[in-house]
Amino acid sequence: MSRTRAAARGAPPGASAPAPPAEPSVWRHRNLLALEDVSADEIAYILDTAEAFRDVSTRSVKKVPALRGRVVVNLFLEDSTRTRTSFTLAAQRLSADIVDFTGRGSSLSKGENLRDTLRNIEAMGVDLLVIRHEASGAAALAARCVQCCVINAGDGRHEHPTQGLLDLFTIRQMRGRVAGLHVAIVGDVANSRVARSNLHGLLKLGASVTLVGPTTLVPRAFEQLGVRVCHDLDAVIGELDVINMLRIQQERVSSNVFPSIEEYTRLFGLTPQRMRRARPDVLVLHPGPINRGIEMTADVADGPNSAILRQVTNGLAVRMAVLFLCNQAAGR
Amino acid sequence: MSRTRAAARGAPPGASAPAPPAEPSVWRHRNLLALEDVSADEIAYILDTAEAFRDVSTRSVKKVPALRGRVVVNLFLEDSTRTRTSFTLAAQRLSADIVDFTGRGSSLSKGENLRDTLRNIEAMGVDLLVIRHEASGAAALAARCVQCCVINAGDGRHEHPTQGLLDLFTIRQMRGRVAGLHVAIVGDVANSRVARSNLHGLLKLGASVTLVGPTTLVPRAFEQLGVRVCHDLDAVIGELDVINMLRIQQERVSSNVFPSIEEYTRLFGLTPQRMRRARPDVLVLHPGPINRGIEMTADVADGPNSAILRQVTNGLAVRMAVLFLCNQAAGR
Amino acid sequence: MSRTRAAARGAPPGASAPAPPAEPSVWRHRNLLALEDVSADEIAYILDTAEAFRDVSTRSVKKVPALRGRVVVNLFLEDSTRTRTSFTLAAQRLSADIVDFTGRGSSLSKGENLRDTLRNIEAMGVDLLVIRHEASGAAALAARCVQCCVINAGDGRHEHPTQGLLDLFTIRQMRGRVAGLHVAIVGDVANSRVARSNLHGLLKLGASVTLVGPTTLVPRAFEQLGVRVCHDLDAVIGELDVINMLRIQQERVSSNVFPSIEEYTRLFGLTPQRMRRARPDVLVLHPGPINRGIEMTADVADGPNSAILRQVTNGLAVRMAVLFLCNQAAGR
Repeated sequence: MSRTRAAARGAPPGASAPAPPAEPSVWRHRNLLALEDVSADEIAYILDTAEAFRDVSTRSVKKVPALRGRVVVNLFLEDSTRTRTSFTLAAQRLSADIVDFTGRGSSLSKGENLRDTLRNIEAMGVDLLVIRHEASGAAALAARCVQCCVINAGDGRHEHPTQGLLDLFTIRQMRGRVAGLHVAIVGDVANSRVARSNLHGLLKLGASVTLVGPTTLVPRAFEQLGVRVCHDLDAVIGELDVINMLRIQQERVSSNVFPSIEEYTRLFGLTPQRMRRARPDVLVLHPGPINRGIEMTADVADGPNSAILRQVTNGLAVRMAVLFLCNQAAGR
Repeated sequence: MSRTRAAARGAPPGASAPAPPAEPSVWRHRNLLALEDVSADEIAYILDTAEAFRDVSTRSVKKVPALRGRVVVNLFLEDSTRTRTSFTLAAQRLSADIVDFTGRGSSLSKGENLRDTLRNIEAMGVDLLVIRHEASGAAALAARCVQCCVINAGDGRHEHPTQGLLDLFTIRQMRGRVAGLHVAIVGDVANSRVARSNLHGLLKLGASVTLVGPTTLVPRAFEQLGVRVCHDLDAVIGELDVINMLRIQQERVSSNVFPSIEEYTRLFGLTPQRMRRARPDVLVLHPGPINRGIEMTADVADGPNSAILRQVTNGLAVRMAVLFLCNQAAGR
Repeated sequence: MSRTRAAARGAPPGASAPAPPAEPSVWRHRNLLALEDVSADEIAYILDTAEAFRDVSTRSVKKVPALRGRVVVNLFLEDSTRTRTSFTLAAQRLSADIVDFTGRGSSLSKGENLRDTLRNIEAMGVDLLVIRHEASGAAALAARCVQCCVINAGDGRHEHPTQGLLDLFTIRQMRGRVAGLHVAIVGDVANSRVARSNLHGLLKLGASVTLVGPTTLVPRAFEQLGVRVCHDLDAVIGELDVINMLRIQQERVSSNVFPSIEEYTRLFGLTPQRMRRARPDVLVLHPGPINRGIEMTADVADGPNSAILRQVTNGLAVRMAVLFLCNQAAGR
């Protein structure tokens, strides 16, 4: 809790200037590329800082001056309105200026390589670059090209660390802790950056993790990471504290690795019937957007166990914390 | 006039903080969905408030702090640059933060339903949602889904209330009153949300309204609303104080309900010849963008009777007033 | 230097309000349409003002209040992310509000003519309009239609004056002067607005200019403007102080006027071999985005003679100066 207070002191209260943190920040990285690279202490420190920022979004004046005059660029080279909007609102709440640099109509579409685009953006005097890219490793490449802070907003099948953090934040908020909980990640784990970030974060904070899905989507090889692999949701559902349902990418259904939608829903979809086998207080998460009737029925999505909209709200606080801490670590 | 002063007191003068209104606001709704639902007093109160905001746009510093730290989201699911830009500039002039959440590339295009999109936007801590949607009733649906303020920026063929308000504002500004004036709405009334908002607003403020156009586009059924229906513009043009020309949607021309463009222009287009039959001070309005040579000739569009650019200017003041009053009514 | 100080005094220092310039501004135009129309003194004054603004981008708080409450509209009717982003960041650093009014989905795509779009934007209370358009002369047309300031961000094959200014700024910064230097502009000069703005600016500031490229792309007629035309880069490279490489528009390659890419690169591409014939301190410029391996090899683009990223950085300072001075000249 003293850690929370220190973070809160680092985070500027109300409309006054940010006070210097009373103790050195636990977070020393200018980039957030992957939860795999982040320690348990660092994750906890980000969550504590997000806690301190959470109230800003409930005020009528949703602003702190922490990043006034800093420039954030959203470089989203895959379609995304939700995550981009969340980062935009987070930056605005910190009083930063923010510019979208989209792929459509950009110099990238004129054949420029990513490295040149990145170095051009940096040359415009940018402080923080938020990047989403279809290639795994794109955020790490960006961090090698530029001196400004790089935040990974999703790179291919690799990681989506702020999604992992907001899931951890939501679990901690609803259960008081992460350590010792049993969390299932259900769905197309093999292709999911959300699964990968969650898995690393959960293990670091001491949860036990079970990956659930068809054999084609949840290969046994994941067991080497220290998780359990299970192909039968019903066999395990009664033991779970948290069920994190992944989004089904319907464009993958036609491929051989994927069963039919009906088959998937029958085996892995959360229905009121299946929920009756779960603990009464099981927490249901989903990164959104939900395919209602596929990953879960509407009753479950909107029911008392669902924390799905809370995840969205928490995403803002977590992204404010990440932007704030990376900028601070860069000594700007 | 005392009403104007009260609104002006509610509206923050210059760069200082907004003073509390000296008397309770006449406007008590967190949403603006349709002029059909709004009383004459409430319409007048919005126009008075817009009056107080109008000067902001003529200053060199076009800012008042009325909505500082409030978050406005533009959710435009039909193409529109003008109306969206007008709301954006209005929000900026009130010092709000504004984010565009467009359909392209959004979770809606990934199959999410509108209700989930709306509740997700709300979960990000939004104060005011400005929505345009191709379905009539979409704004009302939104208002049922979310707690934040909802402003209808056009829903299908239903209503476009801020367009109706800016037309009323312009008429009142140029004629000193709306009551007792004879206003014609000319064109594809059956399919026009602009016509519907105008019609309700004009009748409430005491104007007499004549709908003019071909029989296929102006059905007799409208007479039940208390307006006159007329298929011959020349028969009525001499009696009119205001002619509000609707935009011809050229994509509708190929359908059976629509005469040829030449035929339409010959019967209903405003030409200098036809204008000679009108009163010398008749006011010509058009919601834009104009099809020059179809709804009216360039001479008429740019002539002394046209208030078309004034409508655009007034649109900003009206939208500032609507954002300000809805936010105030929500008690934020 | 006293000119620099005067500009610096006109430019607001830090976060305090802008001090009135100690001497009348040399710049008296509300528009920047073409360097052809601007005097040597005026160009120098813009560069001096940019010098005063340059430091803003290196601070942690990248903001001066010079244009607080002013409204800038980006009307980009040709795809461009770089130039648009540069203007957006420049406007934000001056504390202006900025709105993008793009072609896609706008009233222009509904058939509205450019003049109506321009007058509508103006009616919304805009102070500065930044316009890019595929038609030569579009910016001048805009300036005749509206009273607000018009900044040309590229009109067809005509001019791209802020690119010309940032090239001049970079040359002056790296060489201490422009007068007396020998500058080559290499590539598709006939179709390049960058070439045209550079050429006028360089000649006004006293440089000698050689246009280099294939006969089809660099017609002899340019000699009437007071420049040398040369079709053999190797014959002239040893005399040059600055080489400004134009971007090859690959879509033009299929046409008859253009040699093959390989042929072009062999004759005009900057390779380490060719650079050995140049002066050791020759300055290499390129407006970006670079086609690596075509206009120049990666070694040259990233080598010690290249000032290409510096151009990007300087572009921001130059655009801040242009927005600031045009707004000031308009008496706003």
